[in-house]
Amino acid sequence: MTERKEFRELTDPDKATQVIAELPLSVGTEKVSLTEAPGRITAERVDATIDVPGFDRATLDGYAVRARDTFSADEANPVHLSIAGSVHAGEKPTVAPDSGEAVEISTGAVMPDKADAMIPIERVEEHDNEVAVFTSVAPGENVMFAGADIAAGERAVGPNQQLSAREIGVLSAIGKSRVTVKCQPTVGLISTGDELTRPEDPLDHSRGEIHDVNTYSLAAAIRDAGGSPQIYPHANDDVEQLRSSLINAAEECDFVLTSGSTSASTVDVIYDVLEQEGQQHLHGVAVKPGKPLLAGVINGTPYVGLPGYPVSALMTFKTFVSPVLREASGLDNESTTVTGTMCVEERFQEGRRRLLPVGIVEDENNDLLVYPVDKGSGATTSLTEADGIVSVPADTAYVSEDETVRVSLFSSDLHPPTVFGIGEDDPILMDALDQLRSSRYLSAGSRVGNRQLRRGIPDFAILTGPLTNDPSGEIQMSWTHEWGLIVSPNAQGRIDSLYSLTKEDTTFVNRTSDSGLRSALDTAVSDLAADRDMTTRDITTRIDGWNHTVQGHESPARIVQRGDADVGIGIKQTAESLNLPFISLGELPVRFVSNPTRTEKPGVQQLLSVLSNSIF
Amino acid sequence: MTERKEFRELTDPDKATQVIAELPLSVGTEKVSLTEAPGRITAERVDATIDVPGFDRATLDGYAVRARDTFSADEANPVHLSIAGSVHAGEKPTVAPDSGEAVEISTGAVMPDKADAMIPIERVEEHDNEVAVFTSVAPGENVMFAGADIAAGERAVGPNQQLSAREIGVLSAIGKSRVTVKCQPTVGLISTGDELTRPEDPLDHSRGEIHDVNTYSLAAAIRDAGGSPQIYPHANDDVEQLRSSLINAAEECDFVLTSGSTSASTVDVIYDVLEQEGQQHLHGVAVKPGKPLLAGVINGTPYVGLPGYPVSALMTFKTFVSPVLREASGLDNESTTVTGTMCVEERFQEGRRRLLPVGIVEDENNDLLVYPVDKGSGATTSLTEADGIVSVPADTAYVSEDETVRVSLFSSDLHPPTVFGIGEDDPILMDALDQLRSSRYLSAGSRVGNRQLRRGIPDFAILTGPLTNDPSGEIQMSWTHEWGLIVSPNAQGRIDSLYSLTKEDTTFVNRTSDSGLRSALDTAVSDLAADRDMTTRDITTRIDGWNHTVQGHESPARIVQRGDADVGIGIKQTAESLNLPFISLGELPVRFVSNPTRTEKPGVQQLLSVLSNSIF
Repeated sequence: MTERKEFRELTDPDKATQVIAELPLSVGTEKVSLTEAPGRITAERVDATIDVPGFDRATLDGYAVRARDTFSADEANPVHLSIAGSVHAGEKPTVAPDSGEAVEISTGAVMPDKADAMIPIERVEEHDNEVAVFTSVAPGENVMFAGADIAAGERAVGPNQQLSAREIGVLSAIGKSRVTVKCQPTVGLISTGDELTRPEDPLDHSRGEIHDVNTYSLAAAIRDAGGSPQIYPHANDDVEQLRSSLINAAEECDFVLTSGSTSASTVDVIYDVLEQEGQQHLHGVAVKPGKPLLAGVINGTPYVGLPGYPVSALMTFKTFVSPVLREASGLDNESTTVTGTMCVEERFQEGRRRLLPVGIVEDENNDLLVYPVDKGSGATTSLTEADGIVSVPADTAYVSEDETVRVSLFSSDLHPPTVFGIGEDDPILMDALDQLRSSRYLSAGSRVGNRQLRRGIPDFAILTGPLTNDPSGEIQMSWTHEWGLIVSPNAQGRIDSLYSLTKEDTTFVNRTSDSGLRSALDTAVSDLAADRDMTTRDITTRIDGWNHTVQGHESPARIVQRGDADVGIGIKQTAESLNLPFISLGELPVRFVSNPTRTEKPGVQQLLSVLSNSIF
Repeated sequence: MTERKEFRELTDPDKATQVIAELPLSVGTEKVSLTEAPGRITAERVDATIDVPGFDRATLDGYAVRARDTFSADEANPVHLSIAGSVHAGEKPTVAPDSGEAVEISTGAVMPDKADAMIPIERVEEHDNEVAVFTSVAPGENVMFAGADIAAGERAVGPNQQLSAREIGVLSAIGKSRVTVKCQPTVGLISTGDELTRPEDPLDHSRGEIHDVNTYSLAAAIRDAGGSPQIYPHANDDVEQLRSSLINAAEECDFVLTSGSTSASTVDVIYDVLEQEGQQHLHGVAVKPGKPLLAGVINGTPYVGLPGYPVSALMTFKTFVSPVLREASGLDNESTTVTGTMCVEERFQEGRRRLLPVGIVEDENNDLLVYPVDKGSGATTSLTEADGIVSVPADTAYVSEDETVRVSLFSSDLHPPTVFGIGEDDPILMDALDQLRSSRYLSAGSRVGNRQLRRGIPDFAILTGPLTNDPSGEIQMSWTHEWGLIVSPNAQGRIDSLYSLTKEDTTFVNRTSDSGLRSALDTAVSDLAADRDMTTRDITTRIDGWNHTVQGHESPARIVQRGDADVGIGIKQTAESLNLPFISLGELPVRFVSNPTRTEKPGVQQLLSVLSNSIF
């Protein structure tokens, strides 16, 4: 067995949070133009250095006057003033009203000398060179005095303020064309793992290669935390490249992150660099996932090593690193949490703090429900199924249904899905979902869909195959697929029925037992066995590949297509789209079953309406 | 009077919304790399074209076995298997276990041929070339089968999905290094107005020049709506430049916006371009503000003309244009609205739909309160004081206190301030606010502060000067400033007391009557009058500039400094910072008065703690 580093003592997660927060991260400031400023955070307070407006300004179209001249005016007894001239916006006044005079003025124009009020056009009558004024005005009326909007010396925008259209408008008004903002901390990102390949490169499945996920998902998460990601070459088994990437990143960035450090050689290099070029502050944290978390400094630059599984990497980033980056870049941490109600009980092994990936969904009252998501080790799909993390203390054995929990969201602008379903991977549903904005659907099979619907988690489930139990909700709609065997052109001659699967030298590919399509097959095999006076097991043991079960409604057909099996289970639509021979075994009913308390939810109604348009 | 275009018939706002929504805006798609993808919106659904993992994968460290070999194993009766070899992550297996054999395997490695399950390292004992297995495993146990995470053909990411770390992780996993996203509509932006000057250019106050606000605030608002702003030269009085900017913007952008079209010559050019190069669809909408709204097409490109006042421009943009841009760029409109409770009654003139600028604040229960903001025509500070808009139907005479209203937020990531105060512009408070994140303070003077506190709007008020009424809350803290006269060095000889303000050839500059400092002065003048057996009016009429009142606690001193008055009212701290002579008239008390229901609000407590640190 490869020798693995053991953690002598796990650090308490709160202590780890503190250690990482105290790493020496300092971020400078820069001046940006107003067009580059949206979303940035001010580094310092901006006081107005000019009065806005810089002059006494007419707020309406009308006549500038000496207020005292109008004091006796009313509807019955107008005062008559002679028009001494006019002034428009953007013009320097060339005339000033003496007593008994008025100056025509337009909105935004400079009040002429000697005038101390203005009368709106609606309150006068104009005759040749004279106006009849039907109202008295007080000094200052309809005039915005210099500095009345913002006075020189006034605090215009505070420090640590995120700049939106509003603040940028005020900065323009006070003539600040550039604003000093906090720099976005640059984060060097190194993904390690012998089996990792960039998304653009082909995979060698025989070597167990997988695409590198962390580089890209962490880069996006770094941006969301106000940072600027910088991707360094990842290391595979080249320890010297890893060493130089670490040292370069520490030199060039404000923070260094690695993810995935499970292999002994990788860990050795990181230890070595920390020892020779810096210091290790912690290794091993009492948190699940996140036990192998590493933190320290390399040449004075903060360093954190995250676990390798994508969900673990994102959760530990969000928990331990994101708050530090957000703090440094001036972003608020509060706005990335929401509270909700657990809609199922979840039990834990005690011992380590648990970071529970959760999804959120709105109930019928727009209240937030929270449910645990766990597709098991290393599944990247859990990423899109989870919205955030609930942190469960080490001594907590369970979080009960109806308990209020605080969810730390994966991104700051995340909203619950408009509609949320679980169940069979059905092509008609998938097309309908394409018409909706921000829906969520977990293709976990009919069995899981029905079970989760019973627990009150999704808004709806898609159930196919024979209904063995009553569905845990209300059937709102149903449609059918023709299902059967999808056959390789090479095997077409010898396969003509379900029973022909038992022939020697015929390889089959099945669906997992969570699938409704599989249940339909199980029923068909059982009927076949009864017809032939055999047991079901007699038949299934004769089928080579009965236990070769795969996810995804198209997966068996695709395996047949690439020549890795002779025949697979599937629906006619798939056979047609892949241009493969098809042997029908019957009609497969598909049912849209809604959560009874949420049938009226707008997202559910919208989806039903799209579905009924596409079916009928 | 300049001839002004009159609107023969105002369009109903709902009709205007529809007209603008139907303008021919079409936005294409583009492929971006995963590092450029965060925040973008998918233009099409992405299905997996490979299985993830692409091979059967060990989920733990341990031994790959044939499950059948372990069926008899338990704690008391281990099964002994001989070790046939090993396989690590990123390696191609070179050995396959026969019956009675096990293969050492590490997490993530490819399951060797013939093995159909694996046993975690914790459940075996290793002896030389043999393992004792203490548990039975079922076929498939601790193995992630090919496609179990995502199967080829499965829907991985839907269309119209905003891409965050999660979706980008899944796209990496399925080997999509580029993703097709919706283009961001480019919006050509032309600000018109003879009096406008860019923020970087100096102002000629005598001509009534002001800085251009709309170009920059609308550019930020366009970004928030998913668009990409493109700024065109603004037109001043050069009608030919306006004409060519309009035509170029229509040629180069997906949408054209102008703001401010009050002068006749500007409107004439726009009319002319619409007539010659396109079509006018509406002019004049029954909404306040927004009456002069224009919409049409120029050479096939949608055009909207917004009003010129910054708050009006932003509100009409947000109401009529932003939804169209968000729709085109694939952003959700729902997420930019919140509901809250009006905390004061607001009355309206009926006749036109009213767009009411409002602020939001959290009450003691974290519920959202909404209050109207209106600093009057053209004030850019209203921009930072307002968070969004409440749309009030034309036939509504008032919105009552406690009514639930829907607020359309100015930006999608906007949150209520942590703490919200109104009152005197006090330098000690301003420094304390700099320590807090996203606070809000309106320097509207003590009188307004006390009145708004009585109405339950802010969390606290800062009240200075003599307390004529009981404060409308609880005094939590108080401090003092030395106040008095700030004197020009040129006038220093002849001014030595309050009474010397009445000397001839002495010009004074006062604060507005909303200010607590002014109240202190009024009291001092009244005391002086009593001492001298005069009326207050006897004194104030003798002071040249008594009615020259300005906003901002530093404003009188700054006017004195630049030589436009001999003496002004202010505090000693200002005199010292501007290095001007100071004549003390007494101590000015400053009181921090909290809203009794919100004293315990965390933002209030935090501010009090910062204040008490800075004072004591």
